[in-house]
Amino acid sequence: MSAEPAAADAALPGARFREEILEQPDALLRLLDDQAQFAYVAAEMHERGATTIRMAGHGSSDNAASYGVYAFGILPGLTALRDSISLTVYYDTELDMSGCTVLALSQSGRTPDVVEYARRAKSRGAFTVAITNDPASELAGVADAVLELRAGPELAVAATKTYSNQLAALGLLAAHAAGESESFAAELRSVSTTMPQLILSVESRIANVALPFAYAGRMFVVGRGAEFATAREIALKLLETCRIAAEPLTATDLAHGPVAAIDSLFPVWAIASDDATLGAVIEAVERAREAGATVVASGSAAEAIPGADYVLASPPASTLLAPFLSIVPGQLFAGALARARGLDPDAPRGLSKVTLAR
Amino acid sequence: MSAEPAAADAALPGARFREEILEQPDALLRLLDDQAQFAYVAAEMHERGATTIRMAGHGSSDNAASYGVYAFGILPGLTALRDSISLTVYYDTELDMSGCTVLALSQSGRTPDVVEYARRAKSRGAFTVAITNDPASELAGVADAVLELRAGPELAVAATKTYSNQLAALGLLAAHAAGESESFAAELRSVSTTMPQLILSVESRIANVALPFAYAGRMFVVGRGAEFATAREIALKLLETCRIAAEPLTATDLAHGPVAAIDSLFPVWAIASDDATLGAVIEAVERAREAGATVVASGSAAEAIPGADYVLASPPASTLLAPFLSIVPGQLFAGALARARGLDPDAPRGLSKVTLAR
Repeated sequence: MSAEPAAADAALPGARFREEILEQPDALLRLLDDQAQFAYVAAEMHERGATTIRMAGHGSSDNAASYGVYAFGILPGLTALRDSISLTVYYDTELDMSGCTVLALSQSGRTPDVVEYARRAKSRGAFTVAITNDPASELAGVADAVLELRAGPELAVAATKTYSNQLAALGLLAAHAAGESESFAAELRSVSTTMPQLILSVESRIANVALPFAYAGRMFVVGRGAEFATAREIALKLLETCRIAAEPLTATDLAHGPVAAIDSLFPVWAIASDDATLGAVIEAVERAREAGATVVASGSAAEAIPGADYVLASPPASTLLAPFLSIVPGQLFAGALARARGLDPDAPRGLSKVTLAR
Repeated sequence: MSAEPAAADAALPGARFREEILEQPDALLRLLDDQAQFAYVAAEMHERGATTIRMAGHGSSDNAASYGVYAFGILPGLTALRDSISLTVYYDTELDMSGCTVLALSQSGRTPDVVEYARRAKSRGAFTVAITNDPASELAGVADAVLELRAGPELAVAATKTYSNQLAALGLLAAHAAGESESFAAELRSVSTTMPQLILSVESRIANVALPFAYAGRMFVVGRGAEFATAREIALKLLETCRIAAEPLTATDLAHGPVAAIDSLFPVWAIASDDATLGAVIEAVERAREAGATVVASGSAAEAIPGADYVLASPPASTLLAPFLSIVPGQLFAGALARARGLDPDAPRGLSKVTLAR
């Protein structure tokens, strides 16, 4: 791997992971530069009447799909679901998928059951679209159409820039389907331009925020609505790179049982967006604080969380743009905490970049 | 509460929780005794062409909805999704829900955002059905039709018999929609008859299985397909009653990141069903064991999990019936472990029976 761009820093633990976090604004702008593929897929969806969106992916790809539920719901008003892969691949049910667009998400394009899911979905009448970083992959070959992520090679095992470009691909497709591509693209371009400053600002103080969590064994990560995707993705970064048992919860689900587990050794990370979900997130944090939790508040409305122990605010952004910024403190925190724990975020134990597990 | 039936044992920690676990077979048989309500709702779904199923609920109700995805997919071949409540309640999107049946799940019938979701879904064209233990509740009043759980009063905070009756209600409705109500009901009756023996047999040795986990702080609970509902519900029982950071994962998602967090202090509970998902579960357990995890194997194919440290097998059952039995060892384990930890499973800290959180 010595020929790769990040090679100069590769000796430092987490150098690649950090490099790829920093590359996110450029990766987003690259995706925005050629929207013909989104216009084409949106037109095909319309042409075929394939207006129920079934998404399939694992790990970060599945987290991005949580965002897709909101992007398609809010922009074109379409129902988008994170489909059960097992139902089609293992139980081989004969669901009628005509009228459906399948978005099969895999960074590598090689996740076996996602490839098989796309193959079967196509035979059941779905319009199938691969969303992948590798347009020459098996998944791309199986699907009717490909949306290339254009994130550039991702070398750290834990996904960062492919996750944010998956969000962008889902958002852009939803915007094209809604006839709102210009405004969404302009907002996303603006957010991408804001991102480098956010990264620098958070990075300058993240080691101090991470340090008190050096021995934390578990954490809840709470978000609601479009930020539930962010909660899931931050929890996954903490699991992978820091080996924390981090569980994502919607703000409301926290109250339906899990809050009972909280005490002063069970911190809570909350992502607050300045939209209609804010009240629910504030209420959840209040419950967590009553139970003694240390609270990290992030998101565009982080300052609105009362009594947070740490505040990692991101700049103001609308509901569907905020998740591009609110993920950044989570990624940087995971990198800093991994280093504080003596772990290498580039190479979590037991994982490889391409997961071929069933 | 001294007038309640369980009062004689109420002084023992977890007496109510245990009593309600034991009541599950009778509660299931009660539901099976009057299937007219399922026949009526299935006929209405057909009549109205409301054949996409949108489910909404929190906590155990949402876990039961995970089972609904498989019940509707396998039996009538319908698409069922765990819908985003936020999209409708907080973002107020104008999704067209004609052609949809909404199943709003709430034991109490009082969960505020589930009630509001049902109200709005109805105004957007959905056929709305309340699945609740209280046919006089607000939720029942809002919906077009009611499926009463008939579980009897549930007094322990952590749900048990209302969860299994929610599974049964979803399975029976799916079976009626598929024209397979007689065979499904017969199988469920048979499973209910098997259950008391399973409860006795597991209960006689569960304290010894639970004891080594007295200081466990975190756990993964792994299942795939129809047993993912069981994995979610066992994890929730462990969170609520034992204060373990227990996270449910599909067998495949374990490999996509979380496995990196496992070590010898991070046990894994696996639910293996004797169906097409078994290979994926075995593969996941092998990865967990390589990482040093202590493994508890449960489910109808528990014996097929190689090298498990503890085996809590349930009797053979088909894909959609197995979850009624495989939940039992998880419930009993949670009760036993809570007692071993000096906690009262009847009254987890910070929770009340009816959750009114936003």
